[in-house]
Amino acid sequence: MQETDALLRLAMLNTAYAAAIDADRLEDWPGFFTEDCLYRITTAEDHRRGLQAGVIYADSRAMLHDRVFALRKANIYERQRYRHIVGMPALLGQDADGLRAEAPFVVVRTMRDGAMTIFAAGRYLDQVRLDEVGMLRFAERQVICDSPNFDTLLAIPL
Amino acid sequence: MQETDALLRLAMLNTAYAAAIDADRLEDWPGFFTEDCLYRITTAEDHRRGLQAGVIYADSRAMLHDRVFALRKANIYERQRYRHIVGMPALLGQDADGLRAEAPFVVVRTMRDGAMTIFAAGRYLDQVRLDEVGMLRFAERQVICDSPNFDTLLAIPL
Amino acid sequence: MQETDALLRLAMLNTAYAAAIDADRLEDWPGFFTEDCLYRITTAEDHRRGLQAGVIYADSRAMLHDRVFALRKANIYERQRYRHIVGMPALLGQDADGLRAEAPFVVVRTMRDGAMTIFAAGRYLDQVRLDEVGMLRFAERQVICDSPNFDTLLAIPL
Repeated sequence: MQETDALLRLAMLNTAYAAAIDADRLEDWPGFFTEDCLYRITTAEDHRRGLQAGVIYADSRAMLHDRVFALRKANIYERQRYRHIVGMPALLGQDADGLRAEAPFVVVRTMRDGAMTIFAAGRYLDQVRLDEVGMLRFAERQVICDSPNFDTLLAIPL
Repeated sequence: MQETDALLRLAMLNTAYAAAIDADRLEDWPGFFTEDCLYRITTAEDHRRGLQAGVIYADSRAMLHDRVFALRKANIYERQRYRHIVGMPALLGQDADGLRAEAPFVVVRTMRDGAMTIFAAGRYLDQVRLDEVGMLRFAERQVICDSPNFDTLLAIPL
Repeated sequence: MQETDALLRLAMLNTAYAAAIDADRLEDWPGFFTEDCLYRITTAEDHRRGLQAGVIYADSRAMLHDRVFALRKANIYERQRYRHIVGMPALLGQDADGLRAEAPFVVVRTMRDGAMTIFAAGRYLDQVRLDEVGMLRFAERQVICDSPNFDTLLAIPL
C-alpha cells in the first residue's frame, strides 16, 4: 500500500473502532481483531521495562468476546459515556505481515451529572493485517496508557 | 467522490469550521451551512430517544445569523477561549444528496486566569452537500453532546 | 504539491513531532526544524496584539538544541508524561517558500499518581519547507496558547 493510502485506512480503522466503543456497541469490538490476536492494556512504565503482563490481556478474539460478556454482566445500567479522540496514526513499518503503526489517544468520560474528566491518555501500538476480503484488522493492539493507575479501566475497552 | 477524497474533504471542512469558531470569527459560521439547513445541539440521551427538539435548533442559515447576532449582543467582552479537537470523520454513506458522516469532538475551554476544563464532548452527525461551486456545506449538522447538562452551552456554537 | 497530499504530509509531520516529544525523545526535536528557523511559544492575546517576544523564543536549530540541554539538566528525573493530540491541519497557503498551515492541539499531562489534567491548548501556526532530500521541516512554528499563564511551560517543548 502507498503510505498515504495506508495512513488514511489506518485512520478510518481507528475511527470506526473508537466509534463502536463510544456508542456502546461493544459486541462489535472483537470484530476489529483477527482470530489470533493480541490485545493488551499496559502502562508506559511497564511497556518501557518490557513487562509482558498487562492490566488487561487477551490473545484471541474469543477472549475479547468473553470480556464483553463479563462487562455486560457487570454493568447492567449505563452510567457514563466515553469519547475517544484518536490522533492521526504514524506508519512505523510495512511488510508481508501488514502494517505497524501507532496513534495517540485521549478518552473523555462524561458522568450522568455532566461532569467531564479525562479518563485515559496514551498511545496505541498496532500490528494491522489485511484480511482475505481486504478489510484491515488488528493482529495486535497494545494500549499503552500514560497513567500508572487502573482503578477504573475495567469499565470499557480502550 | 472516492472514499479517501471524501474523508479528506470532510476533515478539511471540520477543521475550517472549528477554526472559525475558535478564532471568534462567528460571523463566518453560518457560511458553512446551506441556505436551508438543520443545525441542532442535543444530548446523546435525547438523540437516542428520537426527540427532535434540541437545546439549540435552527432550520435555516438566516436563523444561524440571528443566533450569532444574539451571542454578540450578550457577550460584549471576550471572557474565555475555546479549542475544538475534531477526530477524523467516518463516512456513513454517499448518495445523490451528498455525504453522511460523523466525527467525534472535544472542546477545551480556557478561562482568563488560565484554568482549562473540558467544555463539551460528543459527536457531529452530518449531512453534507457539494454546492454549485464545488464547496462542501452542511445541509444538516447535529451536535450530539455526551453531557446531559447545557448550562453554559449558550456561549458559542459547537 | 496537491492540496490533499500537502495536508497528509503536514499531518504526518505533526504526528511525528508530537510523538517525539511525548516519548521524551527531546534530542530529536530540533531535527524537525530548518537550520535557520523561528520557534516561539506565545499567548493568543500577545499574538493578537502583534507582540513578537514570546514566552519561549529561538531563531536557530542550535538554540533549540541548547534548550533541550537546559531541560535535561533541570529535569533529572522524569516526573510526568505528556500526550499531544493534534487536529488535522488547515493549509493556509502555498508558494515557492513552502506551505503555511495551522493546526489545533491539546496536551494532556499525567502525573506520577495518575492525575490527568489539560496542560495546554491552542494552535500551531507554521511555515513548512521541503528540504533538499524531500523532507518537510518547520522554518517557523509559532505555538499560540489559549492560556495566558505559563508557569509550567518550561517543562517540555510544545
